[in-house]
Amino acid sequence: MISDYIKTKFTAIVGAENVDVSPAGRLVYSYDATPNFQSMPDAVIAPRNTKEVSQIVNVCREEKIPIVPRGSGTNLAAGTVPSEGGIVLLFKHMNQILEIDEENLTVTVQPGVVTLNMINAVEKRGLFYPPDPSSMKISTIGGNINENSGGLRGLKYGVTRDYVMALEAVLPNGDIIRTGGKLAKDVAGYDLTRLLTGSEGTLAVITEATLKLIPMPETKQTMLALYQSMDAAAKSVSEIIAAKIIPATLEFLDRPTLKAVEDFAKIGLPTDVEAVLLIEQDGPAEIVARDMQKIADICTREQAVSVQIAATEAEALALTSARRAALSALARLKPTTILEDATVPRSEIANMVKAINEIAAKHNVTIATFGHAGDGNLHPTCPTDARDHDEMERVEAAFADIFAKAIELGGTITGEHGVGMMKAPYLEWKMGPEGIAIMKAIKQSFDPDNIMNPGKIFAKETRKRLVISQ
Amino acid sequence: MISDYIKTKFTAIVGAENVDVSPAGRLVYSYDATPNFQSMPDAVIAPRNTKEVSQIVNVCREEKIPIVPRGSGTNLAAGTVPSEGGIVLLFKHMNQILEIDEENLTVTVQPGVVTLNMINAVEKRGLFYPPDPSSMKISTIGGNINENSGGLRGLKYGVTRDYVMALEAVLPNGDIIRTGGKLAKDVAGYDLTRLLTGSEGTLAVITEATLKLIPMPETKQTMLALYQSMDAAAKSVSEIIAAKIIPATLEFLDRPTLKAVEDFAKIGLPTDVEAVLLIEQDGPAEIVARDMQKIADICTREQAVSVQIAATEAEALALTSARRAALSALARLKPTTILEDATVPRSEIANMVKAINEIAAKHNVTIATFGHAGDGNLHPTCPTDARDHDEMERVEAAFADIFAKAIELGGTITGEHGVGMMKAPYLEWKMGPEGIAIMKAIKQSFDPDNIMNPGKIFAKETRKRLVISQ
Repeated sequence: MISDYIKTKFTAIVGAENVDVSPAGRLVYSYDATPNFQSMPDAVIAPRNTKEVSQIVNVCREEKIPIVPRGSGTNLAAGTVPSEGGIVLLFKHMNQILEIDEENLTVTVQPGVVTLNMINAVEKRGLFYPPDPSSMKISTIGGNINENSGGLRGLKYGVTRDYVMALEAVLPNGDIIRTGGKLAKDVAGYDLTRLLTGSEGTLAVITEATLKLIPMPETKQTMLALYQSMDAAAKSVSEIIAAKIIPATLEFLDRPTLKAVEDFAKIGLPTDVEAVLLIEQDGPAEIVARDMQKIADICTREQAVSVQIAATEAEALALTSARRAALSALARLKPTTILEDATVPRSEIANMVKAINEIAAKHNVTIATFGHAGDGNLHPTCPTDARDHDEMERVEAAFADIFAKAIELGGTITGEHGVGMMKAPYLEWKMGPEGIAIMKAIKQSFDPDNIMNPGKIFAKETRKRLVISQ
Repeated sequence: MISDYIKTKFTAIVGAENVDVSPAGRLVYSYDATPNFQSMPDAVIAPRNTKEVSQIVNVCREEKIPIVPRGSGTNLAAGTVPSEGGIVLLFKHMNQILEIDEENLTVTVQPGVVTLNMINAVEKRGLFYPPDPSSMKISTIGGNINENSGGLRGLKYGVTRDYVMALEAVLPNGDIIRTGGKLAKDVAGYDLTRLLTGSEGTLAVITEATLKLIPMPETKQTMLALYQSMDAAAKSVSEIIAAKIIPATLEFLDRPTLKAVEDFAKIGLPTDVEAVLLIEQDGPAEIVARDMQKIADICTREQAVSVQIAATEAEALALTSARRAALSALARLKPTTILEDATVPRSEIANMVKAINEIAAKHNVTIATFGHAGDGNLHPTCPTDARDHDEMERVEAAFADIFAKAIELGGTITGEHGVGMMKAPYLEWKMGPEGIAIMKAIKQSFDPDNIMNPGKIFAKETRKRLVISQ
């Protein structure tokens, strides 16, 4: 709990109505979308502007109070759980789209803007913000930047990082800095913009961002290809890229995911195939038509049992909605859903999916897998029950094996979800002790008192790495 | 000078043939492409592999010897001048293309590979590496990464940073780290890949890089539009973007540049116009044709006195060669050429060019301007004579005014050349004391002994900023 003295300080900055120390108010922000992680904050504070953020940070530094910046809490790595107490910083007042600049193709926003609201606002002007995390209906841009969120369009268009041009941020010492600009080119010193992007709130509080926009693609088409073998689906992915076609999305669902989605959404998806590719291309109509035909030919040649291009926009929307519903659908199966995002080079997808299935069998757990086949970002998902401690231990062991295998195949422990608390014990597997050491040195240089989102990214202890049985 | 004792240590690592302490050998590496900066290194060392780099770094750390990693020394900000002595690290032995991975669309290289050689190698496979710094015929990939080089295709395709997927680097403590991977998505901790990219050799020695490739555009067309007013040319640029067209290149040359280029290259360019736009579009043939027609219509509507699409590839090549020859052409006019790269948001180009001309008149110096109109990255260039101290003072004052104006317009002191020694006194103008402080803290966290390319990015003293007369 914070003392009355400190509460008075916060109240003087943001007003009594923006400081919540009630048990109910704190409980709401004691967890995020990640199962099995919960910890109460001492206060929930909603600043109204950057100056107030700076003043709050100054109080927290003087009093050594942890600060957890939080958007909508949709992250899946326990990145916004106040594991060491302190204050949760909300951006409900800092939620304005400040400017859409059509001449420089930028949008400037406060961190609390909901991603989809911003996307809709720029699309009205014929402009396009490609990063589309599955949570975009409720996630905020501030959260997206802190997590460097990905999405379905990563293969062709990149991730949040590729669209952040400038930031305003409050450093742990209370300084307000501005990085970058409305500039495609800027090499004035270290790339603070991209260092802060994806830093999970551990280095600074982001208070404003200018994002790059591109012209809206003229048209889009959607295709579903069904396979009786994962290898054939993966081979199709490779052949599409080898044909020098980069689809806007290239998604994969395995049979268990497909069954869960169809049970949930009832849009007539087949449930008797081993793998499905959902493929979209966007761009000028004639090029989209040409690409889609080439892709259809490749899928057919690579033993797809069915290839179907959506005839109408409604049909296309149903297909992409099905993919976007995968997590919700799987979450209905059991009380607890553990969703991971081990990522491998595109060429290793078939090997990785095979390994995931073997690991699931070895540990006697159920794992359904879907994800972004085009960029190797897979989401092995385990429907389980947090109350079954024996099963939870096996689930954890299975995911440890999955991380190890991903790294062995040249991949990473997290493609788009972040490290947070959940994957901190595995970060050293990817980065080595030398990589961890330099990351910790950077953290120390920004935040010597460790007040910024402590307990995230860096683990007290690295998990012991076991050799996987091949 | 280094002692015999230390020379023996280096010789034991790389062999006597790879340690040069001769005056002639050192003289060659006492300067780079930047006028007016020179300083002798104590030794020139050419390691053969990453392990040797690590061993050299360990000796340098123990003995507090500065290390200057150097590619071909084409940088224009005195980024590779050994201003505090020490060793220059050459990569002539580490110059191999290690792999072109057509399935994952990556190329893995050692730092000493010449940029154009790599571009040619991947283009043979139908793949495309977009960053094209003007020095690419002799620059190395290691240099490009350290400087985060730009080029003519930045508007549509981004800069070097956007293509670096993974790095191997030796830290100042001798540790070898690997960042990233063949992964479109990777959020495992801080973005070390992009922090090292553009860090000008001040944080680590890059020893290997994996770069992203994209499919080669099917076709390209080139157009020249001539104007009797800069405002009309700038208006055309804005209107092209407003029409939701992003050209592959959108270059600008003013009348003095044009005259110098024509005198030099004699390809029949007009020299009686105020401004020229060189515009290229690439992609599928039908889309390129459509875009070029739209662009031509816009230029004509915006008072271009002539719009001409190159009829043949030879004609197109002549036009782009003319643009690429701008610096060489201007360099023939006077003994010394000072080339800058102040950068502004695209919407401010006309204002910036106007300001540059006013500043040149005010300080009684000649400044020709060309550059990347599409991304606001201008190259005001001053033909002068380093022996004329009075004129050099006026040149420096003029460029100080130009930097101040660029920042005032929302721009930066350097778009693609880097800070180096040359622009270090101005960095605080862009970043503020708070920004400099956090950059210095990052530097300190990597390199507490300040052995990595000391004297670059951070100035002993920030230049006093005078108010510009409007």
